[in-house]
Amino acid sequence: MTPALSILVIDDNQIRASIIEQGLRDAGHFRVILVHEMDGLVRRIAEIDPDVIVIDLENPNRDRLEHMFQVTRAVQRPIAMFVDQSDAGSIEAAVEAGVSAYVVDGLKKERVKPILDMAISRFRAYSRLTAELEEARNELAERKTIDRAKGILMKTRGISEDEAYRLLRKTAMNQSRKIIEVAQSLVIASGLLGD
Amino acid sequence: MTPALSILVIDDNQIRASIIEQGLRDAGHFRVILVHEMDGLVRRIAEIDPDVIVIDLENPNRDRLEHMFQVTRAVQRPIAMFVDQSDAGSIEAAVEAGVSAYVVDGLKKERVKPILDMAISRFRAYSRLTAELEEARNELAERKTIDRAKGILMKTRGISEDEAYRLLRKTAMNQSRKIIEVAQSLVIASGLLGD
Repeated sequence: MTPALSILVIDDNQIRASIIEQGLRDAGHFRVILVHEMDGLVRRIAEIDPDVIVIDLENPNRDRLEHMFQVTRAVQRPIAMFVDQSDAGSIEAAVEAGVSAYVVDGLKKERVKPILDMAISRFRAYSRLTAELEEARNELAERKTIDRAKGILMKTRGISEDEAYRLLRKTAMNQSRKIIEVAQSLVIASGLLGD
Repeated sequence: MTPALSILVIDDNQIRASIIEQGLRDAGHFRVILVHEMDGLVRRIAEIDPDVIVIDLENPNRDRLEHMFQVTRAVQRPIAMFVDQSDAGSIEAAVEAGVSAYVVDGLKKERVKPILDMAISRFRAYSRLTAELEEARNELAERKTIDRAKGILMKTRGISEDEAYRLLRKTAMNQSRKIIEVAQSLVIASGLLGD
């Protein structure tokens, strides 16, 4: 897809890392960075700022897997993860931890490219959905805040809903702010003043 | 996970179907139904009503793949799909078409169980997210409708917002309906009457 994709490969097993790297090179990916050190990963990933992350853990124990899921939860990136065996619980945990492709017992170099493509597609689809959810929730929260602010004005000033809204809008214009900002300030201040 | 899961396997290749079936049996899944006929699949799936669907297509051409994606879009079930090769475009199309696990070049019986578990986990996570999105959007839409209904009452009856809301609530109680239903009726009727 995008040949200039930068890919971070996290692997403490040199042989398995070279399989992944070979698969990436065969697929035309040359911006590949290998990391073998498992400590301080979140900071390291932030420094490298890769487009995609490939993690190989071979046979992780539960602690190691949980540590890696803490990392994957923290970094908002397409992540493909290879393990050699897994139970249903770990698979569910991987999905919850934002691993876009969790591949059990399937590491071979020919499969690296389709798995990478899959991780990117799934990450994008998921990001789109979560962005839509955030937008809908924000809009709802803003509407509720503006309604509360109008209610406060209607009660304290004895004015109508229309007048309350016009007052919010006028204040926002005068202060070069958004209506939602003025409404939020009013709700917060009203709480402070024991209204 | 759930041994009593009913699984529909769609495959026109008997050898590959038996690999999948064997993998499912090894994992303790015995409620397996095989379907070899590719026509009328959506109706067939509705009749069988399986918990999970496994589709094997070996080397599908673009038309065949697109036909299968029409099926996967129509049935709201965890779907694992095996193909032997794929390009990035088809992988993206698979994600868009609701395929929970799209496995390229990775069919062997030991992998059937983890892939099935993955498809189920991913389907659940995705369903939860889409349900939350639907809920947020519904709540927003209801709030807008109730606001419009209040506005109509305030204008036509010359009453305050509080009074408008109380009138909606009283009408809903008298008619054993929800407030949103009364508000919707009012908005629709008001449009009809040219308000």
